[in-house]
Amino acid sequence: MNVEILSIGTEILMGELVDTNAPFLAARMPALGLTVRGIAQVGDSVEDLAEALARALQRSDVVITTGGLGPTQDDLTREAIARLLKEELQLDEALVEGLRSLFAGRGATMTPANLRQAYRIPSAQALPNRQGTAPGLWVQKDGKLIIALPGPPHEMQGLWEQEVLPRLQQRPQDAVIVTRTLKTFGLGELAIDAAIHGLFGQENPYLGIYAKADGVHLRIIARAATPAEAQRLIAPMEAEIRQALESYLWGVDDETPETRVGALLREHHLTLATMESLTGGALASSITDVQGSSDYFKGGFVAYTAAMKIAHGVPPELIQVHGVVSAPVAEAMAEAARMRAEADVGLGITGVAGPASLEGRPPGMAFLGLSFQGRTRSVEGRYIRGRPLVKRAATVHALLELYRFVTEQVAAQR
Amino acid sequence: MNVEILSIGTEILMGELVDTNAPFLAARMPALGLTVRGIAQVGDSVEDLAEALARALQRSDVVITTGGLGPTQDDLTREAIARLLKEELQLDEALVEGLRSLFAGRGATMTPANLRQAYRIPSAQALPNRQGTAPGLWVQKDGKLIIALPGPPHEMQGLWEQEVLPRLQQRPQDAVIVTRTLKTFGLGELAIDAAIHGLFGQENPYLGIYAKADGVHLRIIARAATPAEAQRLIAPMEAEIRQALESYLWGVDDETPETRVGALLREHHLTLATMESLTGGALASSITDVQGSSDYFKGGFVAYTAAMKIAHGVPPELIQVHGVVSAPVAEAMAEAARMRAEADVGLGITGVAGPASLEGRPPGMAFLGLSFQGRTRSVEGRYIRGRPLVKRAATVHALLELYRFVTEQVAAQR
Repeated sequence: MNVEILSIGTEILMGELVDTNAPFLAARMPALGLTVRGIAQVGDSVEDLAEALARALQRSDVVITTGGLGPTQDDLTREAIARLLKEELQLDEALVEGLRSLFAGRGATMTPANLRQAYRIPSAQALPNRQGTAPGLWVQKDGKLIIALPGPPHEMQGLWEQEVLPRLQQRPQDAVIVTRTLKTFGLGELAIDAAIHGLFGQENPYLGIYAKADGVHLRIIARAATPAEAQRLIAPMEAEIRQALESYLWGVDDETPETRVGALLREHHLTLATMESLTGGALASSITDVQGSSDYFKGGFVAYTAAMKIAHGVPPELIQVHGVVSAPVAEAMAEAARMRAEADVGLGITGVAGPASLEGRPPGMAFLGLSFQGRTRSVEGRYIRGRPLVKRAATVHALLELYRFVTEQVAAQR
Repeated sequence: MNVEILSIGTEILMGELVDTNAPFLAARMPALGLTVRGIAQVGDSVEDLAEALARALQRSDVVITTGGLGPTQDDLTREAIARLLKEELQLDEALVEGLRSLFAGRGATMTPANLRQAYRIPSAQALPNRQGTAPGLWVQKDGKLIIALPGPPHEMQGLWEQEVLPRLQQRPQDAVIVTRTLKTFGLGELAIDAAIHGLFGQENPYLGIYAKADGVHLRIIARAATPAEAQRLIAPMEAEIRQALESYLWGVDDETPETRVGALLREHHLTLATMESLTGGALASSITDVQGSSDYFKGGFVAYTAAMKIAHGVPPELIQVHGVVSAPVAEAMAEAARMRAEADVGLGITGVAGPASLEGRPPGMAFLGLSFQGRTRSVEGRYIRGRPLVKRAATVHALLELYRFVTEQVAAQR
């Protein structure tokens, strides 16, 4: 069954807003047996909206819209659906009551404009919104389904989880789609393509390849009558990929380098400290994006200058002899972070953010230092394409090297 | 003149990829006098692509596509344009030569697949791509214009700057659109709406209001025959907004809190150091996102635990008496960062990341500490909606308070 996603709002057409709602929804369709046929962004115009809805319903059975459910004159999704289905918008007293108590609960006064959000056409069922004032709409008519959700991502996601997903799961499905993502680091797309060339080009399971900030991802997509059958299609392909790319694979599905490292440290009751210059805090920030990271992350040092590195315990003679962007300095940074924060594991990053070279080192060159209970190692990294991407790539690389190093060291101790 | 933007790739429909190309392009249209009529994402299917192109050209004169120009069988933009315009793809020997020398320069071997990228229809002009192997296409026919660009953002942006923008600027324009964005912090959308209600609802200049992670943005959009005339439409509205919201305005257009702070510190030859727990490195990372930040950022401490804060110089009795999430501790963190890093200005953030409360403080509660040459101040902050958003909101708030504090202190010294 096909689905179309419409994101509504002139601010998207103005480039003011990156539409993250459509990817959020699109990623959730395959598991429900729904194939996304198209995504479009439409401005705040009743004509354009009704036209886009009509077109979408011509080739798909389900349309999900986000946006245009607010209280202002620019919020026209209700009107467009009414026009398309040739129904009249009517004030729903239950919705008025709901809005009234919402505003009372917030100690705020309801304005006449908010009443717009209490209108619906007879075919529409209101979906209660616990995160905001705009109820969603579930409109079933003539074998077609329109789901209208509010635009603010936290409201849209709340309604998705609480109202839409449970309803969609109850619908009979002719097929389910199961996906499996395998994540690699350290090999380019072409090298991976060469290593597993024979696996591409099949219809079911389908194999996709995507270059990401944390390496190349391989995504297996299988369609079958049941999840278990889809799983049986995936398993042999996954096994083949694992055999071919073994040492380059680091994670699956929604694992990230920071969740992997967090789980490893937690498992072995180890603590971590960081010292970074190139990444300027991005390394620590990634680590602390993980809920519960305060259990194992003892602290971080952002040491942008040589003087700060020395103040934190990096021997000045190392910097004089090898330069500030060097393997010995990266190792000393890891060691110093570990000692200063009294942690088990230390991680250091030094490198050239660019655009200019530094001490003869080119932009994007970095050294990652690892320290675990007195043993150290360093790895050289080269990252391309601008400051924010260099910061993210170095962070990912450092976390993945840390994972490998700690795993080895822990195994060696046994 | 209208324009449509098509982003091509099944990975976008799968939710694998957030489409940043369309917003990049959309944001650049108004200044060229082009109005974005619609944006759509299309899968890797010749039929869907040709249909989307045909539909777009029905209501607009210009279509810009990104993606589908690679060497694989899934890259079908060339074929779709050929089908739509009823022309034959032909091998362009000059493009073959260009690819050959590109691969030779990289020390790589060209595969037969890459030859796909050397085909074009007679109406198409190739746009040289200095960042990759896929040339762009500039197709002018029957008064319509199709611009096909590669999908990887750095290639697309390179081609935009080097080839597309100069060509579009040369076209005669019937009108230009000039925008001006005014950025606020500390007031909600409704409060701002109440303060400048009379300014909304006009056609030209048009005023838009957008809630962002760094506060509410107001965007004035004016259309006129020349940039100077558009500017004259914007000026009185901007003046009215400035008068009404004076103390809440902190920046314009593409200024960010971190670039503002950077410029201020640079102007007054001041240096900065940070100590953060709640934001876990995100504060330092934002500061170092700014090119040249090593000139004024001396270093940062990520002190997640009370013990680390004490080790860095926060008096333990302050933590005992006031709790770790408190105004005195925030000020002591700012002071300690400043002293440790020998900087002029210190910034401290302590707070509750959530989801659980901490020492009776609710999730999202934070204290921002400011220290400038021995004078300190603190500000309380409350942020909602999940860990990453809390980190970003606290970072923005801290940088804006820092801007205000330093400006006042520098003025007081005069």
